[in-house]
Amino acid sequence: MSMSESARQGNSGRERLVVIGGDAAGMSAASQARRLKGPDELEIVAFERGHFTSYSACGIPYWVGGDVTERDALIARTPEEHRARGIDLRLRTEVTEIDVARQRVHARDVDSGAESWTSYDKLVLATGARPIRPDMPGADAEGVHGVQTLDDGQELLDTLTRTRGRHAVVVGAGYIGVEMAEALINRGYLVTVVNRGSEPMSTLDPDMGRLVHEAMEGLGITMVNDAEVTKLLTDDDGRVRAVVTQDAEYPADVVVLGIGVRPETGLAEAAGLPLGAHGGLLTDLAMRVRGHANIWAGGDCVEVLDLVSGQERHIALGTHANKHGQVIGTNVGGGYATFPGVVGTAVSKVCDLEIARTGLREKDARRAGLQYETVTIESTSRAGYYPGASPMTVKMLAERRTGRLLGVQIVGREGAGKRVDIAAVALTAGMTVEQMTALDLGYAPPFSPVWDPVLVAARKAAAKVRNL
Amino acid sequence: MSMSESARQGNSGRERLVVIGGDAAGMSAASQARRLKGPDELEIVAFERGHFTSYSACGIPYWVGGDVTERDALIARTPEEHRARGIDLRLRTEVTEIDVARQRVHARDVDSGAESWTSYDKLVLATGARPIRPDMPGADAEGVHGVQTLDDGQELLDTLTRTRGRHAVVVGAGYIGVEMAEALINRGYLVTVVNRGSEPMSTLDPDMGRLVHEAMEGLGITMVNDAEVTKLLTDDDGRVRAVVTQDAEYPADVVVLGIGVRPETGLAEAAGLPLGAHGGLLTDLAMRVRGHANIWAGGDCVEVLDLVSGQERHIALGTHANKHGQVIGTNVGGGYATFPGVVGTAVSKVCDLEIARTGLREKDARRAGLQYETVTIESTSRAGYYPGASPMTVKMLAERRTGRLLGVQIVGREGAGKRVDIAAVALTAGMTVEQMTALDLGYAPPFSPVWDPVLVAARKAAAKVRNL
Repeated sequence: MSMSESARQGNSGRERLVVIGGDAAGMSAASQARRLKGPDELEIVAFERGHFTSYSACGIPYWVGGDVTERDALIARTPEEHRARGIDLRLRTEVTEIDVARQRVHARDVDSGAESWTSYDKLVLATGARPIRPDMPGADAEGVHGVQTLDDGQELLDTLTRTRGRHAVVVGAGYIGVEMAEALINRGYLVTVVNRGSEPMSTLDPDMGRLVHEAMEGLGITMVNDAEVTKLLTDDDGRVRAVVTQDAEYPADVVVLGIGVRPETGLAEAAGLPLGAHGGLLTDLAMRVRGHANIWAGGDCVEVLDLVSGQERHIALGTHANKHGQVIGTNVGGGYATFPGVVGTAVSKVCDLEIARTGLREKDARRAGLQYETVTIESTSRAGYYPGASPMTVKMLAERRTGRLLGVQIVGREGAGKRVDIAAVALTAGMTVEQMTALDLGYAPPFSPVWDPVLVAARKAAAKVRNL
Repeated sequence: MSMSESARQGNSGRERLVVIGGDAAGMSAASQARRLKGPDELEIVAFERGHFTSYSACGIPYWVGGDVTERDALIARTPEEHRARGIDLRLRTEVTEIDVARQRVHARDVDSGAESWTSYDKLVLATGARPIRPDMPGADAEGVHGVQTLDDGQELLDTLTRTRGRHAVVVGAGYIGVEMAEALINRGYLVTVVNRGSEPMSTLDPDMGRLVHEAMEGLGITMVNDAEVTKLLTDDDGRVRAVVTQDAEYPADVVVLGIGVRPETGLAEAAGLPLGAHGGLLTDLAMRVRGHANIWAGGDCVEVLDLVSGQERHIALGTHANKHGQVIGTNVGGGYATFPGVVGTAVSKVCDLEIARTGLREKDARRAGLQYETVTIESTSRAGYYPGASPMTVKMLAERRTGRLLGVQIVGREGAGKRVDIAAVALTAGMTVEQMTALDLGYAPPFSPVWDPVLVAARKAAAKVRNL
């Protein structure tokens, strides 16, 4: 019997919460549980295999790019701060097994190799996601980096500082890909983005991705679409020197992999916990793992309900992870909270280009069995006559017959990104595009044309729905 | 019998629409009606007493301030463009009487003095609003200006160009007042704003108005609150030279009046059309004047339903006027559309300070018989570590017991103003603050902290509602 187990039994009035994963979801859950229950009632043990806690993974591209100069600026709460609040945080300690039947986890100290079992009354899984690593020659070469964790970011930054490269290749053209392209441009690299899809930003429909493509080329980024990376070439020292696709070879002093992530659910799977079609843990709306009354899960390792399609999705995004943690901590602490689901909102930028989406793309709608109309309109961020008014393209999907809003995609400059929030709230409320035409949105010439671009799209979509 | 009347009777298959007022609501209605019915079916006669049509009155401060250099940039559609679409537009022609019983209007050519009657089948009133002019000595002196119409703006600009003044006084500290303060600072004036209320921006609660006050002083504007203007002093040429309050005298080479507007409904009142408590025309949701099947009204001359309080309000705002015109034109043209009401959204800025509100202020809630909780939070426009993150204050009102969102006020820098749209949509949908805590808003470090400021306020408001 480990010391931990005896410690628990020696204080039988007190429950023990074990948290696996020390970033957004895990530490939010721990902190919120601690707010509701003091150390006399609840012992909290948190395991984190890396060096850091509670940091903004979404901020890594801006740190790598130099917009954020201090790594510590990305850390919302340090290990010391968590410990000061009575959380027994074990860094560099990897949980290797969950024993659901006996309510205990097995952990290994990464540095010393020491192993031990820790029992729990309540368990939170916040194991995050792992970047997809292509299975090809050279994928593990020096100079090839993911940017999932703060440790990853530090390694990439070390490479950039140590080597004096000119050519950077980003593999993948999703959010991470385009943000890393900007970061590497800011670092003075010649940047090539190699993308498997027909256009960058596959979270948009290709017609909107095309606008991103054109803007990226305008920024001096070489955009290669429809390209499958077949191998990475290395020099004699084992350092990457080129990225090879089916058609061509691109010189590379550094390679950043941004081809997506998968839920990190190996532990959960081995423990027999329920996983969904995307490999993420399945929970109820209180974020309790289905079928397990004393296990919760949140953040990048779970699947979430898409309120528009009614289907489960996997979305790795810090804002969801924080909400999950808040909900889990409240429930673990004896309160009540739920996470009703998402509508799929995301914003990003590459230099001054803002990219936003919410709801369903055309292919999502088709997959969900929905028939829809689409409209795409051009408008401006401010009144056309006001200085700084910049063009903005809004695409809107509405369901046939009902006219229910299904999705919005926006590409433009300043003021484009957060405009998607209008549609995110409308989707949550189940509004029709006809209802949206009457929305009372903020108007003044420095902020919007007299018809906000979202209203222009709604009017056109409503007319299309009516006439069909 | 006038020529107009005989023309109508000579073409009995064709209806005649008469529009009174050639700006946003009137010409939008005319244009939309024309889109739906060609000249063979519908004759359209529009009367406008000024020189211009379809212009952005909201843009006048930016033209006066020099951000917009050409007056014509504010004109969305010229008289010639309207005429080319088959609208018989009569500029500089003032309607002096509406004869509802005989379905005709009496008009006078402002320049020639010629008078005539024009009969109608359908009538649209879009007579706008008139600025409140204080009834005091000197109010009509040279150098004293309103900024309601493009003609007003031209006269003010002529004064600024002609005279070489140093001191400008703005009377009133609402949207027009603060926007004109910015404009006059941009023109190099020393600006004093004299305000009857305890804080500027009485469309906000005083605690939020206080933030505007402080920011205006930071911009070098002298802000005088609790001040009643008693008279304006003039020099021997009849030009204004000072503004006098109960306490002090402020030198003034130019005075701008921004003390609000009233619906311009003298004609309607004389014709026996129904007016509300705020002096605006009362319509149904199709914008038809109550009790009159063939008369519509829209824009600054009507009262609108406030969807949050359930009461009628008067709001002079171009974005509503355009929507009204669209709805009226659709109905006049044989289609069907409604304007369901407003939630009271407004945004403004003074230099880099952004000011936004939607829904009810505390006093509105009390007046509507609602009990409420308020929270005020401080957050930032972007992730705290991201360059350009600027502070933002969000105040939120929620109804007791139900937790229904009642209103939001935001004061901050870049990114503060249009964030109010999130709340505007939530108000329209009747969301509770608890529901809002789960909103899936766009998040990335350059756009928002991981908890958007509106979500932070919603969380705090929801907690307050739960605990009471």
